Amino acid sequence: MSHRWVLGVDIGGTNVVVGAVPLEGGPPVASISGPTLAERGGDATVATIAALAAEVIETTVRSEGGDRADFVGVGVGCPGPLDLEAGAIVRTPNLPWDGYPIRDRVAEALGLECVLDNDGNCAAYGEWWIGAAREAHSVLCLTLGTGIGGGFVEGGRVFRGVNGAAFEVGHITIEVDGRPCPCGNRGCLEAYASATAIAARARARIESGEASTLTTYAGGLEGLTARAVSDAARAGDGLAAEVIEEAGRMLGVGVASLVNVLNPEYVVVAGGAAAIGDPLFGPMRDEVRRRAFEAAADACRIVPGSLEGQAGVIGTAGIFVAESSR
Amino acid sequence: MSHRWVLGVDIGGTNVVVGAVPLEGGPPVASISGPTLAERGGDATVATIAALAAEVIETTVRSEGGDRADFVGVGVGCPGPLDLEAGAIVRTPNLPWDGYPIRDRVAEALGLECVLDNDGNCAAYGEWWIGAAREAHSVLCLTLGTGIGGGFVEGGRVFRGVNGAAFEVGHITIEVDGRPCPCGNRGCLEAYASATAIAARARARIESGEASTLTTYAGGLEGLTARAVSDAARAGDGLAAEVIEEAGRMLGVGVASLVNVLNPEYVVVAGGAAAIGDPLFGPMRDEVRRRAFEAAADACRIVPGSLEGQAGVIGTAGIFVAESSR
Repeated sequence: MSHRWVLGVDIGGTNVVVGAVPLEGGPPVASISGPTLAERGGDATVATIAALAAEVIETTVRSEGGDRADFVGVGVGCPGPLDLEAGAIVRTPNLPWDGYPIRDRVAEALGLECVLDNDGNCAAYGEWWIGAAREAHSVLCLTLGTGIGGGFVEGGRVFRGVNGAAFEVGHITIEVDGRPCPCGNRGCLEAYASATAIAARARARIESGEASTLTTYAGGLEGLTARAVSDAARAGDGLAAEVIEEAGRMLGVGVASLVNVLNPEYVVVAGGAAAIGDPLFGPMRDEVRRRAFEAAADACRIVPGSLEGQAGVIGTAGIFVAESSR
Repeated sequence: MSHRWVLGVDIGGTNVVVGAVPLEGGPPVASISGPTLAERGGDATVATIAALAAEVIETTVRSEGGDRADFVGVGVGCPGPLDLEAGAIVRTPNLPWDGYPIRDRVAEALGLECVLDNDGNCAAYGEWWIGAAREAHSVLCLTLGTGIGGGFVEGGRVFRGVNGAAFEVGHITIEVDGRPCPCGNRGCLEAYASATAIAARARARIESGEASTLTTYAGGLEGLTARAVSDAARAGDGLAAEVIEEAGRMLGVGVASLVNVLNPEYVVVAGGAAAIGDPLFGPMRDEVRRRAFEAAADACRIVPGSLEGQAGVIGTAGIFVAESSR
């Protein structure tokens, strides 16, 4: 039996991951990562992508049969903002290649048709395509990491807005004069519920003199992570538990607003911090139930992402399939 | 020249308005209102609608020619929540006919095909069809009245969500533990920027002893309206001006969140309180510019509604046209 494949390319600030995803959807059969080395420029990263892609294709053909002609295209996912029409990077903090036409360069380097989308859209599409919200009416995806990104898929279509800037869900205001956010504003959801915000909140409370087992955290307070806070909470640390609960509640405030606006069938919470699990999801669900209208809350399933680690590769490949079949 | 028409029926808690709207879009040529008398039950209101419709049809035929067969259908708009699938009222505060199948009853009474939608969706569709956002890529409409309603149209399609509960934009949280909202929560946009909230805020500040020309408002403080506050602000009342500015700013906080999520081409602010104009729109636009991402803010035009008084009739007729041509 012969298969057809799409390459998924997930470009992060630190690593690039390339994988071979079956055209009909499924986990990647080969997936390899390498350093992005963004400071060397876009062409260097494209060369890395080409090398990884060659290896992925070889591995895939060796294990699954077929040949290079079975690879029909490539999807590339990047942190935004992006110029989707031009297929270019635009002032992305971790990819300092303003205006670099990443889509066309990858297409040239691989000799394959290429589509580009931002990582939030890719994550949402991946969860809709073969993940936690498979073929649902609609799915809102939030990714909790350094920041909070997201995307929305309705009727199998990625919602991009009038110029590709939609679903910056980390930057809805939940507290008018609240905590400062890296974006320069105050009170954004991201300032309360990203992995960064969870670590920062624990650090600030410890530095103000509150007691916690994290005071003696091996990595030092500066190296504190959301994961460490979550681990401490599980081990019985009261301060850590409060920080996680507060983040979950604030996440619920933001999700409730989005549920009242979008009335989605699924909210998928993905990204590293989603691994905290129930201590985060419990307060979040309670707050959504408290704040969202009953009809919308009843209709909405709030679930963790199911593609952890592979969401980028799968989602970008899925977006290629969706776009090329339009 | 012979025309074809759609009847638009706008059911409010106090009045019902029926008008004849050209099938191709345009202002109603005949528009008549009568009392809803909701407490007499749904059948009585449907009888009122039938009487008004007969009069509208007669007036239209007399002035424009043609005959009753030129009326191809009827659109009905109601405050939500509604069961759009069943075409029924569901626990709408001002229409106490829980479960009443308004769509089919109107269809039977008029002998015309009927579609039902909530007033926020109708307002948004009307502004997209022939109003302030004519045939735009996308339009988010907010209606500022007793509460804050809204709707969203993208690519000519009304966004309804998985079970018709979408775009309750008055109930996004802008302040976690903020002002109490009629919905039972705290910190909803509606608690800061509806016409009701504007009047309540001025009243509360005056009752706490602050000086204002509104202290001697002829209608008494209990009868204070957003219109009166706006008039006082225009006449130089400092407290009234501050109340309007604050409402505008808070509206901008909510609109900025929605712009970051939806990246719409237009935000249309309609409803009675939109008539306040620049004193409300100025602070709102400033706050959107401050809080929304540049790409999304640059792409978005924030404008007042252009169908005041007729939005309901036009929008409901438009939704009939849109639905029946699908």
